[in-house]
Amino acid sequence: MRLLNSRKRLQVGDGTMDDIDKIRTSVLSRIRPGDAEKQKLHELAHSMIERIDDLGKIEGLDIRARLVGSSARGTWLAGERDLDIFIMFQPDVTREFLEEKGLFVARKIAEKAESCEERYAEHPYISAVFDGFEVDIVPAFGVHSAADIRSAVDRTPFHNNYVLPRIRGFEDEVLLMKQFMKGAGIYGSELKTHGFSGYLVELLVIHCGSFMDVLEAACGWKPGMTIDIEKHASMEHKDPLVVVDPTDPDRNVAASLSLDNLCIFIDRACEFLENPDASYFNVKVPDVLDDDGFRKMMKARGTSLIAIEFRAPDVVEDVLFPQLHKMEESVKEMLERYDFRVYNSAVRADANAVLIFELEASGLPDLKKHAGPQVWSRQHALAFKSKYSDSIAFSNIHIRDGKYMVEIPRKYSNAKKLAVMELSKCSLGKHVGLSIKEGYRILEGDEILKIRDEEFRRFLRRFFEK
Amino acid sequence: MRLLNSRKRLQVGDGTMDDIDKIRTSVLSRIRPGDAEKQKLHELAHSMIERIDDLGKIEGLDIRARLVGSSARGTWLAGERDLDIFIMFQPDVTREFLEEKGLFVARKIAEKAESCEERYAEHPYISAVFDGFEVDIVPAFGVHSAADIRSAVDRTPFHNNYVLPRIRGFEDEVLLMKQFMKGAGIYGSELKTHGFSGYLVELLVIHCGSFMDVLEAACGWKPGMTIDIEKHASMEHKDPLVVVDPTDPDRNVAASLSLDNLCIFIDRACEFLENPDASYFNVKVPDVLDDDGFRKMMKARGTSLIAIEFRAPDVVEDVLFPQLHKMEESVKEMLERYDFRVYNSAVRADANAVLIFELEASGLPDLKKHAGPQVWSRQHALAFKSKYSDSIAFSNIHIRDGKYMVEIPRKYSNAKKLAVMELSKCSLGKHVGLSIKEGYRILEGDEILKIRDEEFRRFLRRFFEK
Repeated sequence: MRLLNSRKRLQVGDGTMDDIDKIRTSVLSRIRPGDAEKQKLHELAHSMIERIDDLGKIEGLDIRARLVGSSARGTWLAGERDLDIFIMFQPDVTREFLEEKGLFVARKIAEKAESCEERYAEHPYISAVFDGFEVDIVPAFGVHSAADIRSAVDRTPFHNNYVLPRIRGFEDEVLLMKQFMKGAGIYGSELKTHGFSGYLVELLVIHCGSFMDVLEAACGWKPGMTIDIEKHASMEHKDPLVVVDPTDPDRNVAASLSLDNLCIFIDRACEFLENPDASYFNVKVPDVLDDDGFRKMMKARGTSLIAIEFRAPDVVEDVLFPQLHKMEESVKEMLERYDFRVYNSAVRADANAVLIFELEASGLPDLKKHAGPQVWSRQHALAFKSKYSDSIAFSNIHIRDGKYMVEIPRKYSNAKKLAVMELSKCSLGKHVGLSIKEGYRILEGDEILKIRDEEFRRFLRRFFEK
Repeated sequence: MRLLNSRKRLQVGDGTMDDIDKIRTSVLSRIRPGDAEKQKLHELAHSMIERIDDLGKIEGLDIRARLVGSSARGTWLAGERDLDIFIMFQPDVTREFLEEKGLFVARKIAEKAESCEERYAEHPYISAVFDGFEVDIVPAFGVHSAADIRSAVDRTPFHNNYVLPRIRGFEDEVLLMKQFMKGAGIYGSELKTHGFSGYLVELLVIHCGSFMDVLEAACGWKPGMTIDIEKHASMEHKDPLVVVDPTDPDRNVAASLSLDNLCIFIDRACEFLENPDASYFNVKVPDVLDDDGFRKMMKARGTSLIAIEFRAPDVVEDVLFPQLHKMEESVKEMLERYDFRVYNSAVRADANAVLIFELEASGLPDLKKHAGPQVWSRQHALAFKSKYSDSIAFSNIHIRDGKYMVEIPRKYSNAKKLAVMELSKCSLGKHVGLSIKEGYRILEGDEILKIRDEEFRRFLRRFFEK
């Protein structure tokens, strides 16, 4: 492996560096924000900070506005148009005070927005649209050290402080890295994606030095790797990748990264090094799968498909998706407990949530083999015999491998019927559970074509083709 | 368990001893050989021994004829009409001498038989029919101690010597025990049955004292039990039941007894003690399963059936059945390796041999999930990718649980086709392998009705109903 990697490195260094430069230039010209966008963002940020600070003075509040996140660091991708403005309170105010006054200030500022809504993380904040920019106005405690944070968002300014001086001059590397992650479908640490956060990408660039250096490092990674830039880790983590937060020795910045998304990155890194190509930076949108294409695909595969559809509960994705995945696991476990073999499963949500399960077969024989106790445990034997000797069975009670055995009718020989009858017994999250109680439908095979939504049909194609 | 057994014993002792006596009397009247049969057997044995001894003198051979086996001990079941006559040679003759002269004498004796044939165990012997009795005339070395035996059959006279003085007065107990085993389908130590030999039954009666005592002991048995009447065991055995041969401390008399046949005996023993009934002594012959019954049964079960039929090789059952079971295991293993789930399987042989396999389904989806190496073992990754990236597949190469995965066409999505194409690769015994080479047919579902043989149809019903 070592040798192979070295050879590949040389190849990149000697033979194809020109190619890589060309790819960088072409991709960067697409993803680097233009001067007009930059100026507009800075003006908007400046004016918002001024207005918050002014409002603080008028209201007699000891607050200070700060621009944080990628817009503060010059590492946002062209067109993202996201702004994170923090309202920093003194660290000793009460949580109630911060929530009340913070929301008051944010609302005041948002009065001039094109649209706005209140959102909830650990405490409420305002998300508003100004001039096409989505601006999050977030109250936070301005604690003196990252060790003293009172709310998860309090960490953000420390991240800003750490990254800002170290990333200057490396902004392009971060942009390339982020776009590369986007192309692989693994950018974003939300619980829908389980990918790489912007902060994680910045830390990797700071640690390795450049886009190409990160790829070369990643191509040699194995799950279980730890990166500890400040060499101050104070906790064990069992996550696939551990990147110790330089501002908090207890925290793994990559905690929400899934094993498979890490592996996708490792794989893509190696592939790109061996065969650099601009296509790695393109986000692939699958084609819509039409009725005919669906029928052809199912016929060729020979498998059976079952979908459960219900109204998506009105909660943020970070609440919704863990519940959907919990339901997916629970239904899959139930199907397999009843001998249906699940080849693939996936979830999707917009207004409606859909879970789909691809099965080896949706039907099983009516007959099921049922093993009883060992022959030499007489009390269990008697209980087993009295239970099954008079019931309807396909066979007499007999003996196989030292145990009693009987062939009885299967409770569910059809997967759809199983799902209909037993779905309520599956372990469902709170909001999904309530939504399911209001109603759902279970579709089998061609019935799934009743879902005509284009995004669902793209999702279906990806589900099949991967 | 202890308490339960004690209670049951008392019940039998107090309440139902009369019933048991009635059952004994009625069964014994059926299975005890009549005076005419006894006399005929003794006369035949006497005349054969005389003729062999006379022939020895005439030919100048130092031999002596002996009656051994159940006919010598008065423990044969009415109508069995088997006679075992041994021609004992001096222990120091050569094997060639014994085989040549032994066969010569046996053939001479058999000249007057109604029919006769040469058979082969460790050395050749003659099986002949006289006056409706099947007489085996077997040459053996008359060694002085069981430790010195030169051929497996040499052991038999020692068994005779051990049992004869100990079984007198207990003949009825042995008869009841043998018939009870017959009713359970577990009498006979041949490799077709893997049950209890006559000698084993006699030892159990000698050890426990009576038919009922054997049952009470057996109801408390567990696999792994050892019975060592002479307390002289000199070897460890891993068989389900170990009964140390009183004439050979190294040998397990129950070596060929299978776990399930032991368990059937344990189960039946308990059942009889709780509910004594004459029906336990009846040999059940299943009804013939006609075409209509077969179709109804298959429809209700919802499973798929496959049969492999071929000419049974012309060898004794002790050679044939291990080969058939080896083939059964090998085909089952192959079916399961290709994802077909086998619910039941069985073998049968008369002129033709038939193996049948009951499957969850005879068809599988064309699609098969194929897992590759872990993503971080790059060399394996490259090999996997180069193998599957250009081949016809249902999906792109993707990543699941840290491994590459691809969905490819299944090699065999139909079990019959798999059997047709790959049967020759299964591990087959010598004679079965040769027979298969000459030809075979594979039948699926209703095609199995082409086998019209009544015994096969009884076998089919037992296969389903157990």
